[in-house]
Amino acid sequence: MRWNRYVPMLAALCFAAGVQADEGMWMPQQIPALGDELKEMGLQLDPGAFADLTGFPMGAIVSLGGCSAAFVSPTGLIVTNHHCVYGALQYNATPERDLIADGFLARTREEELPALPTARVYVTTAIEDVTATITGPLDAGLSDLERAKRIDRSRKQMVRECEKPGDLRCQVSSFFAGELYLKLTALEIKDVRLVYAPALGIGNFGDEQDNWMWPRHTGDFGYYRAYVGKDGKPADHAPHNVPFRPQHHLKVSTRDLDPGDLILLAGYPGTTKRLVTAEEVRDAQEYDMPTSIRYRELLLGILYAQGEGKREVQIRNASRIASLENYLKNFRGTLEAFDRDRLLQRKLQSETLLQEQFGRNPDQAQRYAAIRGEFSRLLAGQRAVRDRDTLYGWLYRASPMLAQADLLYRTGVERAKTDDDERDEDFQQRDWPRNRNTVERMQREIEINSDRAGLRAFILETTMLPPGQRIEVVDAALAATGAQGTEAQVEALLDRLYGGTKMADLDARLAMFDDSTEALRQRGDAMIGFAAALRLLGERIEEQEKTFAGAEQRLRPQLIAAIRDMKQGRLAPDANSTLRVGFGQIKEYAPRDGVVYEAQTTIRGVLDKDTGARPFDSPARLLRLAEQERFGPYADPDLGTLPVGFISTVNVTGGSSGSSALNARGEIAGLAFDMNWEGIGADWVVNETYVRTVQVDARYMLWVMDAVDGAHNLLREMGLPVHFAQ
Amino acid sequence: MRWNRYVPMLAALCFAAGVQADEGMWMPQQIPALGDELKEMGLQLDPGAFADLTGFPMGAIVSLGGCSAAFVSPTGLIVTNHHCVYGALQYNATPERDLIADGFLARTREEELPALPTARVYVTTAIEDVTATITGPLDAGLSDLERAKRIDRSRKQMVRECEKPGDLRCQVSSFFAGELYLKLTALEIKDVRLVYAPALGIGNFGDEQDNWMWPRHTGDFGYYRAYVGKDGKPADHAPHNVPFRPQHHLKVSTRDLDPGDLILLAGYPGTTKRLVTAEEVRDAQEYDMPTSIRYRELLLGILYAQGEGKREVQIRNASRIASLENYLKNFRGTLEAFDRDRLLQRKLQSETLLQEQFGRNPDQAQRYAAIRGEFSRLLAGQRAVRDRDTLYGWLYRASPMLAQADLLYRTGVERAKTDDDERDEDFQQRDWPRNRNTVERMQREIEINSDRAGLRAFILETTMLPPGQRIEVVDAALAATGAQGTEAQVEALLDRLYGGTKMADLDARLAMFDDSTEALRQRGDAMIGFAAALRLLGERIEEQEKTFAGAEQRLRPQLIAAIRDMKQGRLAPDANSTLRVGFGQIKEYAPRDGVVYEAQTTIRGVLDKDTGARPFDSPARLLRLAEQERFGPYADPDLGTLPVGFISTVNVTGGSSGSSALNARGEIAGLAFDMNWEGIGADWVVNETYVRTVQVDARYMLWVMDAVDGAHNLLREMGLPVHFAQ
Repeated sequence: MRWNRYVPMLAALCFAAGVQADEGMWMPQQIPALGDELKEMGLQLDPGAFADLTGFPMGAIVSLGGCSAAFVSPTGLIVTNHHCVYGALQYNATPERDLIADGFLARTREEELPALPTARVYVTTAIEDVTATITGPLDAGLSDLERAKRIDRSRKQMVRECEKPGDLRCQVSSFFAGELYLKLTALEIKDVRLVYAPALGIGNFGDEQDNWMWPRHTGDFGYYRAYVGKDGKPADHAPHNVPFRPQHHLKVSTRDLDPGDLILLAGYPGTTKRLVTAEEVRDAQEYDMPTSIRYRELLLGILYAQGEGKREVQIRNASRIASLENYLKNFRGTLEAFDRDRLLQRKLQSETLLQEQFGRNPDQAQRYAAIRGEFSRLLAGQRAVRDRDTLYGWLYRASPMLAQADLLYRTGVERAKTDDDERDEDFQQRDWPRNRNTVERMQREIEINSDRAGLRAFILETTMLPPGQRIEVVDAALAATGAQGTEAQVEALLDRLYGGTKMADLDARLAMFDDSTEALRQRGDAMIGFAAALRLLGERIEEQEKTFAGAEQRLRPQLIAAIRDMKQGRLAPDANSTLRVGFGQIKEYAPRDGVVYEAQTTIRGVLDKDTGARPFDSPARLLRLAEQERFGPYADPDLGTLPVGFISTVNVTGGSSGSSALNARGEIAGLAFDMNWEGIGADWVVNETYVRTVQVDARYMLWVMDAVDGAHNLLREMGLPVHFAQ
Repeated sequence: MRWNRYVPMLAALCFAAGVQADEGMWMPQQIPALGDELKEMGLQLDPGAFADLTGFPMGAIVSLGGCSAAFVSPTGLIVTNHHCVYGALQYNATPERDLIADGFLARTREEELPALPTARVYVTTAIEDVTATITGPLDAGLSDLERAKRIDRSRKQMVRECEKPGDLRCQVSSFFAGELYLKLTALEIKDVRLVYAPALGIGNFGDEQDNWMWPRHTGDFGYYRAYVGKDGKPADHAPHNVPFRPQHHLKVSTRDLDPGDLILLAGYPGTTKRLVTAEEVRDAQEYDMPTSIRYRELLLGILYAQGEGKREVQIRNASRIASLENYLKNFRGTLEAFDRDRLLQRKLQSETLLQEQFGRNPDQAQRYAAIRGEFSRLLAGQRAVRDRDTLYGWLYRASPMLAQADLLYRTGVERAKTDDDERDEDFQQRDWPRNRNTVERMQREIEINSDRAGLRAFILETTMLPPGQRIEVVDAALAATGAQGTEAQVEALLDRLYGGTKMADLDARLAMFDDSTEALRQRGDAMIGFAAALRLLGERIEEQEKTFAGAEQRLRPQLIAAIRDMKQGRLAPDANSTLRVGFGQIKEYAPRDGVVYEAQTTIRGVLDKDTGARPFDSPARLLRLAEQERFGPYADPDLGTLPVGFISTVNVTGGSSGSSALNARGEIAGLAFDMNWEGIGADWVVNETYVRTVQVDARYMLWVMDAVDGAHNLLREMGLPVHFAQ
């Protein structure tokens, strides 16, 4: 038993044999220890290779910050999901040239278009265990807040030091809730260009209707290229930059795929909560998700109403709506899964098992109970103010203009500090260029009427908060209007805010971005004033959160170590946006009695679903070729037709989008772009019966490129033959 | 080629080998000729046996008038669908004894309850080819109207003659649109009693949500018993009656069922339209079904609104709502299928094939074209008044009180005629007792506010009819109110109708049922007066229909004979509520790319779907036994659990409900109770890939009877062992 002892993770990984192979998003360093399993499942590479982040195949896997991707040519060509290059399509689209609908293909390098100003390619170059440096100096007598602050400070210092040489982005990430800290170093490539995306009717075939669903028929893929300066170092976008030459790139495969085949998924999954306590699962099920659903529905209702009959407004709100809808559907599905699969009960059972295990040693049992008890009290403290804190966060989602005001105000405040380490995370010197980009980028999403209607609704929500959880700043601002009645007060406040702000004006915002606090104050912008007042609560909430984080770092590793013991050491950390490898096999599932969802879909489904109208509007050329069954060598010999997608027992989460699905030889067999509806609770509890990842089949990608879009230049660049005439 | 020659059908059936076996609802007499196919599919009985309607197994198959059923004991026990005994449950339910929700089991004969007064069991005893008698005397020079009238008259005479001995119900049915006339004689058993039905949470598990759907988990079965007088002859309900002793009854089987097994379905399918022309299919797709959908939605909206918050109103309207919803879903599904499977295009293609065939013989081609042309003109004539005629029919659906008024008025008029053969069909002497029962039965469905709201909506619809299709009687009645504006006129008319009618009063209606026309007139009932005026249009429409029927009888057999030739003689007639046998096998299907619907469902699905609330509210005892996996010998050895339902490639239509699904030995393996959503266009065009019939598995029926409801008395009566203690 070592659940209560700190054990450096990289040294301590040892696995019991025969355990379910599918659940983990493993750290690459954990893979060698899983080699026997992988070999048995058909792996033809050396499992040890996965621990080498600069070797093959991991050296080809990159992060786009929020999406995963891979190099597929020696000259910096990157394949990822269509929905990961969507922003670049949107950014370059004009009324004359509808790149979103029609897709885009650069037939020469010169035709490639700049991706979003914020687009980045991060190539992980090193991982280092820095746990001792971070936690070594921590005194047991520290307050939780102080503990969190010291950890923050150490991390910031370490990152600054790491990034000193320039062109690098570093992060210190916590694994197993602070049991392990790793410093991750990545090359930050800033000149990213859009190379190719199929038409929306391929890349987003099915859109929201099919989102989170299997069987799926979406060709969710697209291509970027990474550019660097002539010296081979990252550089800002410039015409004379040259393609980045990665050390490794992956081959996109046309090999046959069958149920049972091994699939390895390499990418940057965002966040999972599989190692939290049952109590936290219950809070999520009973409060967090239902509340988020309610607020999303409220805001979506407003945005849809605002856009009714107004195409311009619809376009401005499209991205906000997509993001709200996406997780609305996710949370609904998650709650459904919780209910159907009794996920909370499963979690409770596994905690009961843990307790029984410790019951055999009264001393340990007592310690475990004490930790659980203390953790439980911390959660109760959060619960007491969660109505207020949740709604506070939604004010900024409801009003992008308020969010911009907050960004500008905080930028001024933080920049005024002299010690960069004292600056809030995301407001350090290293963040300024990105934040400035954000100010520019957000211009496309600002729509004053929608903004006001959204803020109105959520300010009205604040007026219904229970006593003890009031947002006093809002209460005061409403009272100060002198109007009679809540509705009138809200309208008066909004009149004041929207009548006295320049938040909708990009030039004004950019000027304010560079303002000192004093200069900003003197502008007397009403929205900035409101944001400044609201920050008081924001700071209180952050302090709360830090206190919780300090306690968490102290307590949670001990809870997790207990789980690891029960699993005989075979435990993957929760996802945290760092490079991971999952593995499993191509496999059907039975979503309900009498129904089987097969492991592969075919072009037949595209033809069946196609209605000629969004979201099922395949390009005419695709339909014609498909009707004529002109699939060339891309057809699947067993299916007897063109494969489109497949599912694997690997599991993913937000951020995994674009992850390469590697076959046993380490070639790209497909790209992960979604998970299935039935497996959607997997961020919390994995039910192996249902959890699947949805991949677009590489053969479909190549057929579309070759036959439909004639992207022959790219196929040649990728070292692949061309089978269709232009 | 003999498409243009009349060929007596019973003699002329000869089949080509190797043709698809599943599409037909075969006349029993056609089965022997299909013997080789059946033997190959596994039949262990003599195929010739199916032509003997009084032998085994056909002698056990009965009609309930609208539902199919079978004798399962020597003492008149009948098994059918739960939804076929539903009316009897409703009829006997009281506030103290909720038979609908709880189900019902008579543990002794004395506890059995009378079914509805209109309940009947029809035991077919003879079929005779009477084509020569009906069509022989018809002169080619007759007008179409006269032709139809003569056929009607011959049929009526034949029926009266047939029914003379008493206790019999005879009908002369047209097959292949008048190519063949058969006289069907059935024993009419009038004392029908409710013996057993499981709880609603079994018998109607899933209700509307699952209706027309597969995979399915409904235990849609129930039991009646047929009683006769002590002399063995049919008699009105009386305590001293004795159970009917059928010549044959079927065994309910616990044998294993597997995909690929032969299934024969014996029952009384109502109506199909598979032999109509493509033009008629187009009319149905483009006008009839969309219009019916629109009117159903209109009326349903009204009925739901009327019932809001009023349980009493909901109950009164429940049956109307169920019936409107049922075909609303059907029509929506049919249109979806038409669209998805391009059923009209298939039909058009097969007509093109026909034409090509005739193209080789110019003389025949010309005749065929002439017939098609004439038929087409007839259809155009119908089309010119279809808005009016369709809406006319809906007035009576909208207002059950108007329908009652019509029934009473017509009863008076027709009874006044001295020659029974001159009386309208359904208003002959033989129909009076049943019609009187209808007057009684309808009392439960009359709800004045809903009635008025419904009639209001449809009268408003009549005001929007195009010129040339006006319902003049309604126009005149509205104008006569003297009110200003359409809405006011409608209200005034409704005030007059509902203020001056006794249609909601059962005693008054029963008295009127016996009134002479004159006596009825003198009562001055406003609704009867309105119905009488509307009859003028009704009569015109009936004359139109008769004219069409006469022409149809003259032309359509020739079109059908052409189809038969193309199918090398292997053609089943369209369903017409007569006894039919279909056959096929237990088989899965793929409703769409990547999805397989398995051929069998299990108790797992019941547990998964159960929510504890309608319509997924299994009885607690069922859930407990299922959770404990106490299935006894009813479990399926391959599935490893209790089977619930299965699908077969046989096809069905309305009226097939309760049809026995026989295994290769002629035992009951299940009961058909629905068809699948994907196959729903099969009334028009059969797409073998999708069309399936949904059966409840006999093993599920027996497990429910044995383990859940303890219907051990019935199991013993059926000669089956009991495996569970009470």
